[in-house]
Amino acid sequence: MLIVAERINASRRAIRAALESLDDAAIQREAEAQDRAGAHYIDVNGGTFPGREAELLTWLVDIVQAVTDKPLCLDSPDPAALAAALPKIRSRPPMINSINLERERYERILPLAVEHRAKLVALCQGEAIPATSSVQKVELASTLVERLVGAGIAIDDIYVDPLVFPLGTDPHSARATIDAIAVIMERFPGVHTICGLTNVSHGLPARKLVNRTFLVAAMSRGMDAAILDPTDRELVAALHAARAVSGKDEYCMELISAFREGVLGG
Amino acid sequence: MLIVAERINASRRAIRAALESLDDAAIQREAEAQDRAGAHYIDVNGGTFPGREAELLTWLVDIVQAVTDKPLCLDSPDPAALAAALPKIRSRPPMINSINLERERYERILPLAVEHRAKLVALCQGEAIPATSSVQKVELASTLVERLVGAGIAIDDIYVDPLVFPLGTDPHSARATIDAIAVIMERFPGVHTICGLTNVSHGLPARKLVNRTFLVAAMSRGMDAAILDPTDRELVAALHAARAVSGKDEYCMELISAFREGVLGG
Repeated sequence: MLIVAERINASRRAIRAALESLDDAAIQREAEAQDRAGAHYIDVNGGTFPGREAELLTWLVDIVQAVTDKPLCLDSPDPAALAAALPKIRSRPPMINSINLERERYERILPLAVEHRAKLVALCQGEAIPATSSVQKVELASTLVERLVGAGIAIDDIYVDPLVFPLGTDPHSARATIDAIAVIMERFPGVHTICGLTNVSHGLPARKLVNRTFLVAAMSRGMDAAILDPTDRELVAALHAARAVSGKDEYCMELISAFREGVLGG
Repeated sequence: MLIVAERINASRRAIRAALESLDDAAIQREAEAQDRAGAHYIDVNGGTFPGREAELLTWLVDIVQAVTDKPLCLDSPDPAALAAALPKIRSRPPMINSINLERERYERILPLAVEHRAKLVALCQGEAIPATSSVQKVELASTLVERLVGAGIAIDDIYVDPLVFPLGTDPHSARATIDAIAVIMERFPGVHTICGLTNVSHGLPARKLVNRTFLVAAMSRGMDAAILDPTDRELVAALHAARAVSGKDEYCMELISAFREGVLGG
C-alpha cells in the first residue's frame, strides 16, 4: 500500500499562510511529521497564486528535501510549475499529481512524465462533464492507461484515480468509485489505483470516520495507494486492518507488528 | 441492515455464570442495553450444559421477553431446545440460528423453521471439512438456498452465513467470505447474508478494530445483516458510515441523524 502524504496542501489554511509568508519551519514540521508517520511519498501543493506557481512549488521542493529523503509528489495542474520543479527532485522517481484527459493538460504533462520517468496520477476526467458512474470511470481509465502505455509510461508507474465525489451530493459516488477500482485492477494487471480520501466526506459530519470507511471499502476491492494524512492514527489503524481483511497480510504479521509498535491504538 | 445482538451468549464468562446461577437480572441488563442500542433481534444462546439446553433456552426466552419487545434469535444447534423455546416466542417472526447441511441437523431444524415461519441463519457448512474458498462457500450457499426454498422457506427469510474463520490461521478467509457474499447476493435476489464478526479476529490483537474493518468490507459487497455487539459505539459508527459509502444511505440522511444523536463519536 503506497501512502502519499497530503498535509502540505495550499487548500489547508495553515499551509496557505506558510506559503504567503515563506515560513520554512511550518512546512518542514509537516514534512517531518509525515515522514515519521510512514509516508512513502510526500505531496507538495503550492496552490494557485497567480504567476507564482513555479516559484512556490520549487520553494516547497527545496525546503521539504532539506528535512526528508522521502520522494516527493508534485501536486499541480500547471505544466510550467512542474517543469521548473521536476529537475530539483533528489529522491527518484518523482510522482506527478496529476494528468487527465483534458487535451492541453495531457499534451503538456505527458512529456514531463516521460523525461523524468515519473510515477503519474491519472485522473478519470476528460473535457466533458465528470464521470459519475463506474462504467464512465472505467472508460476514462481505459483510455488513459492505453494512451499512457502507448506513449512509453510503464504500467507500474500509472496510478489511476477514479475520482470520488462528495457523498452528500452524490450518494452513489463511493460505490461507483470502488466498483471502478475493482474493474480497473482486473483489466490492467500491474496498474495501480489511488484516491484522495477527503473529497468523499466533503460537507458531512464525522469526516474522518467516513474517510477511513471509504479507504477500507476501496482497499478491499484492490486499491493499492492513497493520498491521505498519515498522522491520523485511526486512519492508519484502519489501513493496517484493511490489509489483513483483504488477504494482503500473511498471518497478520504486519498487523501484529503495528500493534506492538502502538500504531493500532487502544 | 439487520442487527442481531450477540451479547447473551454462554461463550462469554459473565453470561455463563448468570446461566449457572439463573441470575435473571444480569441477563436482563444485557437485553435492555442491546435493545436501547438499536438491536433488531436479540440473540439468546444458552450454551451446551448437558441435558439442560431446552430448560436454559426457554428460561432465557422468558426472562428476556420480560424486559424487551424485540424479537429473539434462538441460537442453538439443538432441535429439542429449539422445539421447546419456539412456541414461547412472543414477537414474531422468531429467528433460528442456525441450520446447516449436516444431515441430521438439517432434517430436524427445517420443520421447526417451516412450522414457526422463522427467519433462518443458514451456515455454509456440510458434513465434510469446512468450506474455505469462496467457490466452496458459494456452492454450499447455493445448495442451502435451493433446498430451503424448495422446502417452503421464503427467500426473504434466509440469512446465509458463509462462515469466516480466524485471519490469524487462515489469512484469506475474510477475502473468501466477502467474495462469496457478493456472488450469493447477486445470484439469489431477495436472499440475505449475515456473519458473526468476532470469529475473524480470534487470537489477534486489536480485535474490535479488525471486526469493524471486516464489517465495512463485507457491507460494501452487499452483506445486509450481522451478528454483533450493538453497544460497541465504534462498531456502530463504522456501520453507519459503511451504509453511506455503500450507496445505501440517500444523501447521508441516516449518517447525519446518527451524528446528531451522538452515535458517531467525536
